[in-house]
Amino acid sequence: MKVVLDAMGGDFAPRVPVLGAVQAAKEFNTSVILVGNEKKVKEELSRLDYPKELIEVVHAEDAVPMEEQPSKAIKRRNSSLHVGLNLVKSKEADAFVSAGNTGAVMAVALFTVGRLKGVDRPAISAILPNLKGHTFLLDVGANVDCKPHHLLQFAVMGSAYAKYVLGDENPRVGLLNVGEEEGKGNELTKEAYKLLKRAREKGLNFVGNAEGRDIYSGDFEVIVCDGFVGNVCLKLSESLAKILAKILKEEIERHFISRIGAITLKPAIKSFKRRIDYAEWGGAPLLGIKAPVIISHGSSNAKAIKNAIRTAGQFVESDLNAHIEKEIEKYGKANGD
Amino acid sequence: MKVVLDAMGGDFAPRVPVLGAVQAAKEFNTSVILVGNEKKVKEELSRLDYPKELIEVVHAEDAVPMEEQPSKAIKRRNSSLHVGLNLVKSKEADAFVSAGNTGAVMAVALFTVGRLKGVDRPAISAILPNLKGHTFLLDVGANVDCKPHHLLQFAVMGSAYAKYVLGDENPRVGLLNVGEEEGKGNELTKEAYKLLKRAREKGLNFVGNAEGRDIYSGDFEVIVCDGFVGNVCLKLSESLAKILAKILKEEIERHFISRIGAITLKPAIKSFKRRIDYAEWGGAPLLGIKAPVIISHGSSNAKAIKNAIRTAGQFVESDLNAHIEKEIEKYGKANGD
Repeated sequence: MKVVLDAMGGDFAPRVPVLGAVQAAKEFNTSVILVGNEKKVKEELSRLDYPKELIEVVHAEDAVPMEEQPSKAIKRRNSSLHVGLNLVKSKEADAFVSAGNTGAVMAVALFTVGRLKGVDRPAISAILPNLKGHTFLLDVGANVDCKPHHLLQFAVMGSAYAKYVLGDENPRVGLLNVGEEEGKGNELTKEAYKLLKRAREKGLNFVGNAEGRDIYSGDFEVIVCDGFVGNVCLKLSESLAKILAKILKEEIERHFISRIGAITLKPAIKSFKRRIDYAEWGGAPLLGIKAPVIISHGSSNAKAIKNAIRTAGQFVESDLNAHIEKEIEKYGKANGD
Repeated sequence: MKVVLDAMGGDFAPRVPVLGAVQAAKEFNTSVILVGNEKKVKEELSRLDYPKELIEVVHAEDAVPMEEQPSKAIKRRNSSLHVGLNLVKSKEADAFVSAGNTGAVMAVALFTVGRLKGVDRPAISAILPNLKGHTFLLDVGANVDCKPHHLLQFAVMGSAYAKYVLGDENPRVGLLNVGEEEGKGNELTKEAYKLLKRAREKGLNFVGNAEGRDIYSGDFEVIVCDGFVGNVCLKLSESLAKILAKILKEEIERHFISRIGAITLKPAIKSFKRRIDYAEWGGAPLLGIKAPVIISHGSSNAKAIKNAIRTAGQFVESDLNAHIEKEIEKYGKANGD
């Protein structure tokens, strides 16, 4: 298996992606193709000790900046995104990982590799930790103004990912809504509920509406929503976690006696951070594209990149896309079209 | 000034509302009319020492259950909601406070007291603490499927509340969206942005798009959104804060050395809790109704009820509704209709 890594993606490129690739090659024995400015990438590699047979460098003249509009990114045909995704398209590699501009990765992936059969809109997902395990939330920003059947397809793709990649036996799928009862919601969720109910009759484990609190309740393995709502939820969660930690720190510093306590508290704080650390989870799969594509956080560290490469490998090995096509065929038609 | 308190609203009624009313009367010298089952309310009062001249009891035969559909709640004409809100309508009292069923309070308030002139949809708001102060978020659940001009009106009402009740000199108003730049968003927010921009030309301090992370960034005093999104954000925040605290507790218990630290940490944890405690903030104003209405959390304790009564008093004293009517007249027409 070969994973293409966008060496120019993320806030600390190419240093951090190169480091992550080397760690992944060493730890998982995965072949990685680093795509980017050859000179810069080789310079980074030259400082590291790594398994030469597992790391390859492919040159790309250009790179898409983090703030670039997706429509402009598509036109940069020599970017690391284009060059890298074309390697996947031509089957020279099996999967693609980038910590770059999310919108640009998605646009270039659609343009080069294309959509899976039966999928109308690809979705970006997030794996959020909770007290019991994780919740797979999608869409978190690829699509605003979704139609009901998009949410149905997200449910099918998310459920397949949870089952075949994350190993949840019979993932419980929820529809993000403002109340638990059937009949609650806006126009979109009321209609989506009906489609999901019909898919349930065919075997999808749709268990009903999920509320905002359920994103972290552990009562659902998969929650689907419009990308506008998902994006707000994701950014809200990240900031709230940081702010609560900051408030706690401020309070500790205000109380002298607590300052002493804080020292002895360090092991717990460290474990705490590890449990809520996105880097452990290894990137967000972009679902509905004809090849495995994983998007990492722009501020990813080497561990996050390494774990994203591992995720890409699991995506490939699980043959997820074949499962998704089959299940979209089975459930996606609950739509009637 | 007289505030009506729904003695039958909330998870611990009538005990907790009665206790909160007594505390408010003692602390703020506010007259409170307790509306509910006279026998039960007087039984609770008989156990307390309170200023007799400030507490009045008005009987209501019926009470709306916490899970009742708003459409059914409207038909219970002898409920504490109906009786209490009618006291406000007839000017026998100045404001209404309930920890009851949010949807029911709003429906009965609309039915009895009615909408403010120029306001198409009342909005429920939430006051969320952040590192620098607070963010006033609306709508958090009264309206799903909002139109752009509803968001404009929420901005006008929220801005007035922040200014005249919360004392923010020139509240910065943000539009909740998926990106900072103008032109980002779904159909609703793109159109709402245009209306808000026009209102800015007339003097509204609209500073642009806010992202999910800005709900707690402290860069906005007011953030407006569709009630679907606001509801999800609010419930997500409440649960995430609880879960992070629980994870931290679990980690502390796992590490012996940290357990010792935890004891000395108690003062900091206590301050921390106080800073993020909704009870300190005293309820969510329902804006756009012809009289001040404050909705408290169903699980409110006496302090939360007391603070909600204080909030209701501030709402009355600030003459907020007159300001809202004037500002809706000024800005609400940016809409063109």
